[in-house]
Amino acid sequence: MIHRILIIGAGLIGASVGLALREAGFPGEIAAFDASASELEAALALGAIDSFAHSRAEALRVAREADVVVLAVPVLAILDWMHLLAPVLKTGQLVTDVGSTKLQIAEAAARLFPAAGASFLPGHPMAGKESGGAALAEAGLFRGTTWLFTPATSETSDLETEWRGWVARFGARTLDLDAARHDAICAWVSHLPQMLSTALAALLEDTFANDPAGRAEIDAIGGRALRETTRLGASPYSMWRDVALSNTAPVAATLLALEQRLQHIRENLKSPELREEFLLANRFRGRRS
Amino acid sequence: MIHRILIIGAGLIGASVGLALREAGFPGEIAAFDASASELEAALALGAIDSFAHSRAEALRVAREADVVVLAVPVLAILDWMHLLAPVLKTGQLVTDVGSTKLQIAEAAARLFPAAGASFLPGHPMAGKESGGAALAEAGLFRGTTWLFTPATSETSDLETEWRGWVARFGARTLDLDAARHDAICAWVSHLPQMLSTALAALLEDTFANDPAGRAEIDAIGGRALRETTRLGASPYSMWRDVALSNTAPVAATLLALEQRLQHIRENLKSPELREEFLLANRFRGRRS
Repeated sequence: MIHRILIIGAGLIGASVGLALREAGFPGEIAAFDASASELEAALALGAIDSFAHSRAEALRVAREADVVVLAVPVLAILDWMHLLAPVLKTGQLVTDVGSTKLQIAEAAARLFPAAGASFLPGHPMAGKESGGAALAEAGLFRGTTWLFTPATSETSDLETEWRGWVARFGARTLDLDAARHDAICAWVSHLPQMLSTALAALLEDTFANDPAGRAEIDAIGGRALRETTRLGASPYSMWRDVALSNTAPVAATLLALEQRLQHIRENLKSPELREEFLLANRFRGRRS
Repeated sequence: MIHRILIIGAGLIGASVGLALREAGFPGEIAAFDASASELEAALALGAIDSFAHSRAEALRVAREADVVVLAVPVLAILDWMHLLAPVLKTGQLVTDVGSTKLQIAEAAARLFPAAGASFLPGHPMAGKESGGAALAEAGLFRGTTWLFTPATSETSDLETEWRGWVARFGARTLDLDAARHDAICAWVSHLPQMLSTALAALLEDTFANDPAGRAEIDAIGGRALRETTRLGASPYSMWRDVALSNTAPVAATLLALEQRLQHIRENLKSPELREEFLLANRFRGRRS
């Protein structure tokens, strides 16, 4: 039975996990650690956590007493914490994470955790906002979304089963898939749309940097099409750096494919080939409306 | 005073103009013509028009008696109608259009209409939906949007002033700009977002054509990011063919610039250059949130 949970990272996702646990009726203790004291204070004020550790060393001491440790920091920081936690945890403890990419984490788990005794369940809630931080946390952030898991083995401990139950009580559907497959699919549905939106917004910013009249025209004329295709441009580098670093090859492959597709459209603006592109796109959307 | 209006093209925009005129209290007659009898019947049933011409020849006869003719068909069809109308219209009549690109139309107007006697006001309401057709028409389609004009001269006839007044009563802001500038700006804010959304949706459709498991994973995992960046993929070729044909060079220029930007991001996924792209994109969105 899960009594004590430690959340490492009290940002948007970490604090929302705390709030979702409370809303779902979790009766135990929720502690947290974050490099930012103000995030911890915000999470405490929201009721997302009961207490927090004041240092990394204290967090490791709290981790020894926790049933579940949730790593809710960017991917490279998750890898760091896995190296810190593996030597101090023991059988009967579960570590899980919410990182955006899974292959490096799953590989590290296979390397570090069998020896550790504690088990590791790689996870990834498909939820978020353009901006992070505990102040934006919501108990309902995961409702109606998909929470992915990429377990290394088919064996499931009781703790894992219980944690999956809490995730289901957050209102999320769960789906298991292979870690490499996860990273390839997420490159398509999440990382490529992000890079595309960043590219378009950066390009517009650059192109009209010295043209205030053009900027005013863009603001006056641009409607929903521009707003939706550049919305993710607001996402901070700090949230995406680790995705780019830990999923480089799949993201690069999708970017190259999109570059070639745009080139194909550009070279066929006056040819009937353009019709084929629209028909394919119509078919993609037709199944999803 | 405008008493009789003929709308050529009873699709989404044409029928919405009729409904908006009625809602704004236009007391005169609204006739229409469309190559599709079912669109005309739908517009009539909605109350968007009072009557319709049954043939192109009859439409030209109705045009002779109209104060204002609104061309609400795709750009190449607008150019065709300009050639048909110029010889039969006379001083004291106004032709205006709602075409998505303006340079070819403005050039044709300068060539054809001074001799015609009637005046021509190129226009472009920045309103629409992914799908067309009279059945989707709304009186409020233009509310809160921008209706662009690209007049060839600074002289404004009383009829033009009155038509601009109706557009303002539709709830639209009006903005005048140079026709070539219009096409360049619209390539950025409208045509490029359309082409990139079509490219992304077509690419996904193609990539997962023979992978039903992948399609199911995309549906399960894809969220708002994928939905928003592919939404315009539902737009039909019939609406965009004429944009691609009549604004080829500006659209190609924006596509090439985006391809290069995506390549730059792809080549810098592991370098601090990626931060610069995110910062530029953040700045673009920061002024618009």
